[in-house]
Amino acid sequence: MIDLHYAPTPNGWKISIMLEELGLPYTVIPVNIRAGDQFKPEFLAISPNNRIPAIVDHAPADGGEPFSVFETGAILIYLADKTGRLLPKEMRARSNVMQWLMWQMSGLGPMLGQHGHFALYASEKIPYAIERYRDEAARLYGVLDRQLGKTGAYVAGDDYSIADIACFPWTMTHKAQGFTLDDYPNVKRWYAVVRARPQVQAGLAIGKFVKEPFDEESRRIMFGQAAKELAGRK
Amino acid sequence: MIDLHYAPTPNGWKISIMLEELGLPYTVIPVNIRAGDQFKPEFLAISPNNRIPAIVDHAPADGGEPFSVFETGAILIYLADKTGRLLPKEMRARSNVMQWLMWQMSGLGPMLGQHGHFALYASEKIPYAIERYRDEAARLYGVLDRQLGKTGAYVAGDDYSIADIACFPWTMTHKAQGFTLDDYPNVKRWYAVVRARPQVQAGLAIGKFVKEPFDEESRRIMFGQAAKELAGRK
Repeated sequence: MIDLHYAPTPNGWKISIMLEELGLPYTVIPVNIRAGDQFKPEFLAISPNNRIPAIVDHAPADGGEPFSVFETGAILIYLADKTGRLLPKEMRARSNVMQWLMWQMSGLGPMLGQHGHFALYASEKIPYAIERYRDEAARLYGVLDRQLGKTGAYVAGDDYSIADIACFPWTMTHKAQGFTLDDYPNVKRWYAVVRARPQVQAGLAIGKFVKEPFDEESRRIMFGQAAKELAGRK
Repeated sequence: MIDLHYAPTPNGWKISIMLEELGLPYTVIPVNIRAGDQFKPEFLAISPNNRIPAIVDHAPADGGEPFSVFETGAILIYLADKTGRLLPKEMRARSNVMQWLMWQMSGLGPMLGQHGHFALYASEKIPYAIERYRDEAARLYGVLDRQLGKTGAYVAGDDYSIADIACFPWTMTHKAQGFTLDDYPNVKRWYAVVRARPQVQAGLAIGKFVKEPFDEESRRIMFGQAAKELAGRK
């Protein structure tokens, strides 16, 4: 059995979708990030970066003690290697998946995250920052569109892989962030195909449990003081 | 032989250090990112995200056509798997390296990059953004410090790995970004150990060739119009 420490965010969805794709049994352990659950010592023991999601595998392949994994990219690789699925073994195909997985981890995720912060969540509206990240997000959508035009199928080639699972949940934010997929026809085609997978829909349905409003207190916890205290800056 | 498309930045250093560690023969192909070399079609064919570094392996393990790899995290994994070094095969040790490699790719790199942008390079000084990324960078240094305190040795455990090679060049920016390692004693210890490796010094010596000034034209190319044109935003 796998414990999934979880909140329904693009990064959380990556892993609920992956577990549904693999058909592995798992227990969802809600982490209320708007109330500060991610700063509790018991969560830190599993996730040293204080971020969701993280998993604990109670039946790791080596038969030993439970094993915890943080960072979505590493969780996807761990689960793919455990099951031998969604990450090819052949050197070129495997590296192609790794390259686009890394592109999502270092670019698409963090930069859409920054755009979301400045365009939607920050109490101060800063034109320079909004424009910087809107431009970078548009550039990244352009890169993804070109790649999907090249493969004609999935992000890293002919086959659905953890690269698709990593990218898809972040592209779900396009409307809220003011983008339309009409500008990116290859992304639009791929998006519809991935969105239609029953396993993806099952993964997205996990965690409709969080209904807390996003208010000043959430803002303080997520962007302000708590993070500063953790970093030792008073 | 491996072609290394390169500029002397933290991301570039990761790969020159890795190649020196492995003792693989390679040819450095300078990419002048301040003059816009990264937007040329011949570079785009190798690096679909228009970013340095990228490699082309003319002798891939399968004996086939030359193989190109972009994204530093994927290049490090590719080279480690090719040589069987700096990334353990055993499941737990391997995943620990992957977790901290992903942490660098998704957190330490992008967030120090944003702090550098707002604190050092942006023509407009925006207190909200500078503070946001300074706090996040300090938090990340804190996470790294706690982890290095736990292992007592290297980032992902007892052994030097691609997780160290990924993190180290970004921590080299600490002084320019206004941090002191005196605040992070475990990082300070580790930093001195890694810095002293002859292979690291050899990797850092690559690319002293770039002496172009960072001026308004560089700013336009790197942060402005060229990126917008690429994204199709006029």
